[in-house]
Amino acid sequence: MPSSLPVTAALVVIGDEILSGRTKDVNIGATADFCTDLGIELSEVRVVPDIEDEIVAAVNAVRSRYTYVFTTGGIGPTHDDITADAIARAFGVSLPINAEARAMLEARWQQTGTEVNEARLRMARIPEGASLIVNSVSAAPGFRIGNVHVMAGVPKIMLAMLEAIAPTLEGGQKVKSVTIRCRVGEGTIGVPFGRIQADFPDVKMGSYPQMGQTAVMTELVLRSPDEARLAEAAGRVREMVTEAHRAAGLPLEVEAY
Amino acid sequence: MPSSLPVTAALVVIGDEILSGRTKDVNIGATADFCTDLGIELSEVRVVPDIEDEIVAAVNAVRSRYTYVFTTGGIGPTHDDITADAIARAFGVSLPINAEARAMLEARWQQTGTEVNEARLRMARIPEGASLIVNSVSAAPGFRIGNVHVMAGVPKIMLAMLEAIAPTLEGGQKVKSVTIRCRVGEGTIGVPFGRIQADFPDVKMGSYPQMGQTAVMTELVLRSPDEARLAEAAGRVREMVTEAHRAAGLPLEVEAY
Repeated sequence: MPSSLPVTAALVVIGDEILSGRTKDVNIGATADFCTDLGIELSEVRVVPDIEDEIVAAVNAVRSRYTYVFTTGGIGPTHDDITADAIARAFGVSLPINAEARAMLEARWQQTGTEVNEARLRMARIPEGASLIVNSVSAAPGFRIGNVHVMAGVPKIMLAMLEAIAPTLEGGQKVKSVTIRCRVGEGTIGVPFGRIQADFPDVKMGSYPQMGQTAVMTELVLRSPDEARLAEAAGRVREMVTEAHRAAGLPLEVEAY
Repeated sequence: MPSSLPVTAALVVIGDEILSGRTKDVNIGATADFCTDLGIELSEVRVVPDIEDEIVAAVNAVRSRYTYVFTTGGIGPTHDDITADAIARAFGVSLPINAEARAMLEARWQQTGTEVNEARLRMARIPEGASLIVNSVSAAPGFRIGNVHVMAGVPKIMLAMLEAIAPTLEGGQKVKSVTIRCRVGEGTIGVPFGRIQADFPDVKMGSYPQMGQTAVMTELVLRSPDEARLAEAAGRVREMVTEAHRAAGLPLEVEAY
């Protein structure tokens, strides 16, 4: 059942490879879409390097502030995978080999004839008190402790983990949106658009210039969980855009979706 | 001349559209590449919504900590463009219409027959004491105040602004990297790879699983500003990978670049 209170989240992306530019992140966009679908407001994202102090500080800064925290990256078998260590420290708990995680990993390794070694067993180290995030792609689990969900950095595994945790999250009111396409630049409609925003403080309105497109110059996006108010605001914006098109001698049709 | 001290940076991405998933950010990757090219270590990224308090808090948190701060987004003509307001507040300065910015904008508007209005003039509001970031794509300038560089969110304009500021930034020692491709999974080489990292604390080593590829399973990335140490460490990692290939009955060649 959706909560009537706002449900918020932060994402902490962990990894030197994002900050060096070597890997281009796609998990931020995927997490944003995931949250929006569930009525969770993604309120902040931080990207931090593979430095334990930095991960601890970022996770502790956001976990007290938002309903949920998601992290991606740093849960593999190599020395640079230090997310579990950092989360254990952030929560002040120990980091033992988890029997359930070990059993899951060993079952997979047995199937594939893979030897158990110290590096692979790193992936079974789970903070005391955490529950596992089992997923369909990788035998190495993520975990949840308190409101923090620790997931893989590899996008395919990250998506499988998001799918796995979705039923455990309480969603908020879903935010609906209307996009209205405008054939004049945002400088032209800025003043009347701002007036409509002032009349509808409960409907968030954004203006996004579309560079390199000829027919559509600006997309106006309205967002609200209240469909009636959204429709009312969208009506006002459509009228305003029609008027701007008329003044510019353009076709009067206004595309909205 | 490159500084011998580490030169660091943070990026603050401003915009509800990134957090809702509507727009997929590409400025983080572009800024990361830009910094790496200049020998600047991008140390942190934050994505914040179009809420003045959040922008002020994020900018103030990072500007005292890193050599440079970059921001993207929120400098257009509509009511949701509040970055200049937030930066003026973060620095405790006023936000007047800047004569130089106004003249640049009016010259462009005259060319294109665009009327001057209150919305468009928002783009000429520049914090007291800031200098303009003039760019080749848009007549609307970004600005620099203290160590904070305020730029557009539209990627094409953002890139032009990065190009414009590059000559004004002091770069650090450029970090070189070597990538070594490994045909076995990272669990297999995790222990010996960790030992090599322990022997070379001045060379950062990361391991990145390559999902969905058959021949290459793991990329090992070594990074250091010291080319001699990097070459030495890379030699050790190549030997280790050759040994792992031999043990797995795989071809012994090791691809590195």
